[in-house]
Amino acid sequence: VRTIDWQDGHIVAIDQTRLPGTVAWLEISTVGQLVDAIKRLAIRGAPALGAAGALGAALAVRGGGEDRDGELAGLRAARPTAVNLAWGVDRAVARLAEGPDAVLDEALAILDEDVVRNRALGERGADWLAANVHGPVVVQTHCNAGALACVEWGTALGVVRALDERHRLGHVYVDETRPLLQGSRLTSWELTEMGVDHTIIVDSAAATVLARGLADAVVVGADRITANGDVVNKIGTFPLALAAQRAGVPFVVAAPESTIDPSIQTGDEVEIEVRDGDEVLAIGGMPGTATLNYAFDVTPADLVTAIVTEDRIIRPALGERPA
Amino acid sequence: VRTIDWQDGHIVAIDQTRLPGTVAWLEISTVGQLVDAIKRLAIRGAPALGAAGALGAALAVRGGGEDRDGELAGLRAARPTAVNLAWGVDRAVARLAEGPDAVLDEALAILDEDVVRNRALGERGADWLAANVHGPVVVQTHCNAGALACVEWGTALGVVRALDERHRLGHVYVDETRPLLQGSRLTSWELTEMGVDHTIIVDSAAATVLARGLADAVVVGADRITANGDVVNKIGTFPLALAAQRAGVPFVVAAPESTIDPSIQTGDEVEIEVRDGDEVLAIGGMPGTATLNYAFDVTPADLVTAIVTEDRIIRPALGERPA
Repeated sequence: VRTIDWQDGHIVAIDQTRLPGTVAWLEISTVGQLVDAIKRLAIRGAPALGAAGALGAALAVRGGGEDRDGELAGLRAARPTAVNLAWGVDRAVARLAEGPDAVLDEALAILDEDVVRNRALGERGADWLAANVHGPVVVQTHCNAGALACVEWGTALGVVRALDERHRLGHVYVDETRPLLQGSRLTSWELTEMGVDHTIIVDSAAATVLARGLADAVVVGADRITANGDVVNKIGTFPLALAAQRAGVPFVVAAPESTIDPSIQTGDEVEIEVRDGDEVLAIGGMPGTATLNYAFDVTPADLVTAIVTEDRIIRPALGERPA
Repeated sequence: VRTIDWQDGHIVAIDQTRLPGTVAWLEISTVGQLVDAIKRLAIRGAPALGAAGALGAALAVRGGGEDRDGELAGLRAARPTAVNLAWGVDRAVARLAEGPDAVLDEALAILDEDVVRNRALGERGADWLAANVHGPVVVQTHCNAGALACVEWGTALGVVRALDERHRLGHVYVDETRPLLQGSRLTSWELTEMGVDHTIIVDSAAATVLARGLADAVVVGADRITANGDVVNKIGTFPLALAAQRAGVPFVVAAPESTIDPSIQTGDEVEIEVRDGDEVLAIGGMPGTATLNYAFDVTPADLVTAIVTEDRIIRPALGERPA
């Protein structure tokens, strides 16, 4: 099932804030509703944001609102770090000269491609892991790069799915992913739906899981990959890569080509979203305490063993550049 | 004020599970009550566990219960990782031949020494940081190694207090410290009481704080230091040390000499406590999901810039051994 789609003139999407307890679907008829859903992370994940951006562009041009350009600009900027959101908007809008239906057609094409590309990169990633790991592959992952983060199938979890189909999956260790628990809420829910055995750990236990040799590879998604191979992804990815390097475990990034941003040379140039401190303090801190709630971090290229896309494998740690 | 003490024939201790919302004091009259308080982390922190072990020994020998040896064995083993708990029990019990009052005297001496030793190591740590950092020192810390973890003053936070007294403290970044939030609940409460400006971050953001040059030094406590200089401390300390090394920031461990265990050569030999998964899942995971809730991790000696005790500075990264 597609986690985001177009139905009867509006966007339908699973509300990721209510998982794992409740599977609820949002019906989104205006760009304003979509921007709100994106900002509160009801819709999240780099490829899913690409789809949402494109579908939102269709909403904007079909709705005939007075401030179409303002709506599109607001949608592009709803979250700054992932490259895919603006990419999706721009690609759909590029067909506006052909009329509003062409914009919607382009958005639907992006959704179809997302599914096909995820499957291809999942197979490629499974090929790589099957060739580089002996026996069942135990994967450590972070955040959610599954079907929920895409349209269907997933990127990092697409690799896990492909391994599982081949009966080559050993186990999955899932970082809970503070502050919003995309691991223990979303990835755990997806793996449970798939029937895959997995273990939840706090983020800071991942280094010990790797040091003790419990996992064979780290596989994560990405929100933006810069020309030199730096990987911008959910906060906590960078320390996980440091721990993988220390343990001698491959650190694999699974992401579609659209995540690669050739216009930006290194991760230092990417705007890192800082979110509200209530996300951090809600579970136990004193209200009003200062926080610094970075939503993403930058994993330097030298720590990245492989980037797997639908088209190729890039090895930044060996000096290969994505762009 | 002492966070654990002896009063009118029983132990009084602040209930750390109820901070920061409520400052409540426990009155503990039996070893059974003490073991329960230690297991549920109402009393925690390596030096405080040493004090609790010694005071508990006094309770056991004064109470005249039928199974004194069983009580002492249960107390020694209430938590396996920190060396101080068994050390405190053994040191107090060693005076049993002189009678129960001598055991209590020894326990009270341990409490007095803890305060004096913490002050001394705090000053030594502040000396070291003041000499190695230009201008106000911005400290990154993890878990709680403050007055709550000791009898008074603190180890890592003792260093922070000493810097603050000298007007050399810049700011403190506090890892929230999942799963039990000793950072956002306990360290933040202590710093607020001290009037020290600080910022709470999720544990996995610490690597970014260090990579961006926001902190000048990492200062943490320890639960056990092995002969080679490996440091066993709260889960999340090891990835923090990896991030400090990557950023070129000194990684400083502040702990009393009693934390050094010369009988154990390396961290690989230390039993790492695995706690109940409910601690991890309580905030959002699906009940019943498998977890691996390591309470501590091992930071290899090569990542430890300096260990500061009440007596000396050891530089494991340069090959110096504590024992």
